[in-house]
Amino acid sequence: MTDFWNDSPGLAEALSSVAAIMRESLRSTDFPIEDAVASIIESNGKMLRPALVLIGARFGRGGMESRILPLAAAIELLHVSTLVHDDVLDEAELRRGIPTLHTRFGAKEAVLAGDWLFARAFLLAAESASPANAKALARLVSAICAAEIKQDMDKWSYSASRRGYFRKIAGKTAALFSLALHVGAAEAKAPAPVAERLRRAGYNLGMAFQILDDILDFESSAGVMRKPVGRDIAEGLCTLPLIHALRVDEHGVRALLSALSRERDGAAQMEPAVAAVIARTVSLGGVDAARRDAARFTARAEAEIARLPATPARDELSRLSSRLLSRLY
Amino acid sequence: MTDFWNDSPGLAEALSSVAAIMRESLRSTDFPIEDAVASIIESNGKMLRPALVLIGARFGRGGMESRILPLAAAIELLHVSTLVHDDVLDEAELRRGIPTLHTRFGAKEAVLAGDWLFARAFLLAAESASPANAKALARLVSAICAAEIKQDMDKWSYSASRRGYFRKIAGKTAALFSLALHVGAAEAKAPAPVAERLRRAGYNLGMAFQILDDILDFESSAGVMRKPVGRDIAEGLCTLPLIHALRVDEHGVRALLSALSRERDGAAQMEPAVAAVIARTVSLGGVDAARRDAARFTARAEAEIARLPATPARDELSRLSSRLLSRLY
Repeated sequence: MTDFWNDSPGLAEALSSVAAIMRESLRSTDFPIEDAVASIIESNGKMLRPALVLIGARFGRGGMESRILPLAAAIELLHVSTLVHDDVLDEAELRRGIPTLHTRFGAKEAVLAGDWLFARAFLLAAESASPANAKALARLVSAICAAEIKQDMDKWSYSASRRGYFRKIAGKTAALFSLALHVGAAEAKAPAPVAERLRRAGYNLGMAFQILDDILDFESSAGVMRKPVGRDIAEGLCTLPLIHALRVDEHGVRALLSALSRERDGAAQMEPAVAAVIARTVSLGGVDAARRDAARFTARAEAEIARLPATPARDELSRLSSRLLSRLY
Repeated sequence: MTDFWNDSPGLAEALSSVAAIMRESLRSTDFPIEDAVASIIESNGKMLRPALVLIGARFGRGGMESRILPLAAAIELLHVSTLVHDDVLDEAELRRGIPTLHTRFGAKEAVLAGDWLFARAFLLAAESASPANAKALARLVSAICAAEIKQDMDKWSYSASRRGYFRKIAGKTAALFSLALHVGAAEAKAPAPVAERLRRAGYNLGMAFQILDDILDFESSAGVMRKPVGRDIAEGLCTLPLIHALRVDEHGVRALLSALSRERDGAAQMEPAVAAVIARTVSLGGVDAARRDAARFTARAEAEIARLPATPARDELSRLSSRLLSRLY
């Protein structure tokens, strides 16, 4: 695991247990490329989603680890299975420095391994979650898949509005953050109003997180680089900074996007066109406007968190929120 | 639906309800390529797996349609989602005469649509099955994915033994047939010994069905063509007829397989090499020996069915078994 949780030793320990459950879930069947899938899980970064489940659960009764830890593992397995499929489809060669499954075993094995992870995740969820929460999880995954298809089909059209963009990230990142916090609280029998507030906090946290993540595509100056600059642009995606820039100077930005679209099949020649879109978006204030939107969601998340019961769990969530959002600024 | 169920009007009607639930499950979300996925479901042939769920349920109490029909739909959706992914990975252009999703929308959309179907299927299962059966379903799907990966990695090695082949099809087709009959019976609260017998009947029926399906790859004389002859061979698979042929004349057959392997990257040139393997397998009695194995599983399935309570449901299962297995002979 990363050093992201250094300030939260209790959480880091629980996340190690979650990782162990994920590994155990791999070991329990006759699975041919077990080690390769295990190495993805070993490297899987922050484990943010299971951490949210665990924090949510701390607002409920204690002594429920036997249900909460597998549920947190299930949510992370679902996330990893989507990453495995994303990497095949994007033909990514590396994921966190490790060769992707399709690079090692071919696309067929990688898609099947993703399917297998999906099934193991649903199995863990069925074993550890209440039927209502298992259903909520399945519903969320199907909504995320639908949103991904929609996003892919909208590429290169630059038709998204600010509202459409918010709707899209609400259905993906924000819904998953929201579900993770809420499911943890619900399974640990937290009072319903607390679980509801956690749902809203997770929603706003997820919205801010995704906007900031999308801003990174325009900035190389961020302290921690999560992905190469300009990758979204080169794929024809229309994220919030670009949407703001289009509102300020639709004609000028569309001209640059048309130039970019013409280059889209020759990756080598795209860089100047991508750089031009980025520079124009920044100079039109698109990134600053997006950052203001993110700040608004951050403030809402903080307001929800402030109204949670004053417990160590609230402090933990508050610390996570500021660490997560500040390190991306 | 096909005319396969003409002799079973009650079942055909229930299967129409299952298809309606599948369509409804598609309509309930904001899914961009809904019509295309619906057309796959409209064309989905025999609906054998949901039929087994429905027949199994008839050994239990009546009046449980509200749970049984969605469960049958969930099992068929799982099956369809694996077909969608198979078609992307095999680059198939048509499925039952309809252009495949990846042909119409690209590989990314097709993989995501398969994921979406998976999630919808698990959602339906979580809504309609008992937790134990929902888990059994998730476990089965993960086992099938693992078996598929193993099969793909074993391609061109021709290392399978008869026992290894039986184990493989036991974990795929037979496990699914077995689960479908058993789950239907269990959800409809059939007596446990009856549900257990249905599980064994389904297992043997599935084994016979898969062997006969694999035999079709060697025969163009079959009354109904399910797939082009020689496709398995051209993909480097080692099914039961070939395993038998290798036992009779390992040296001669391996020489033909080596010649085939050398041609594997140039599809146009493969046909004579494939034809040579098929002709040799048939002349060595590999197909006849495989057919004898299938007949043994068929006899076992019939023996289990004969010992079920003498009800219209038993007659239905018996008719299905002989229709299914005879039309493939």
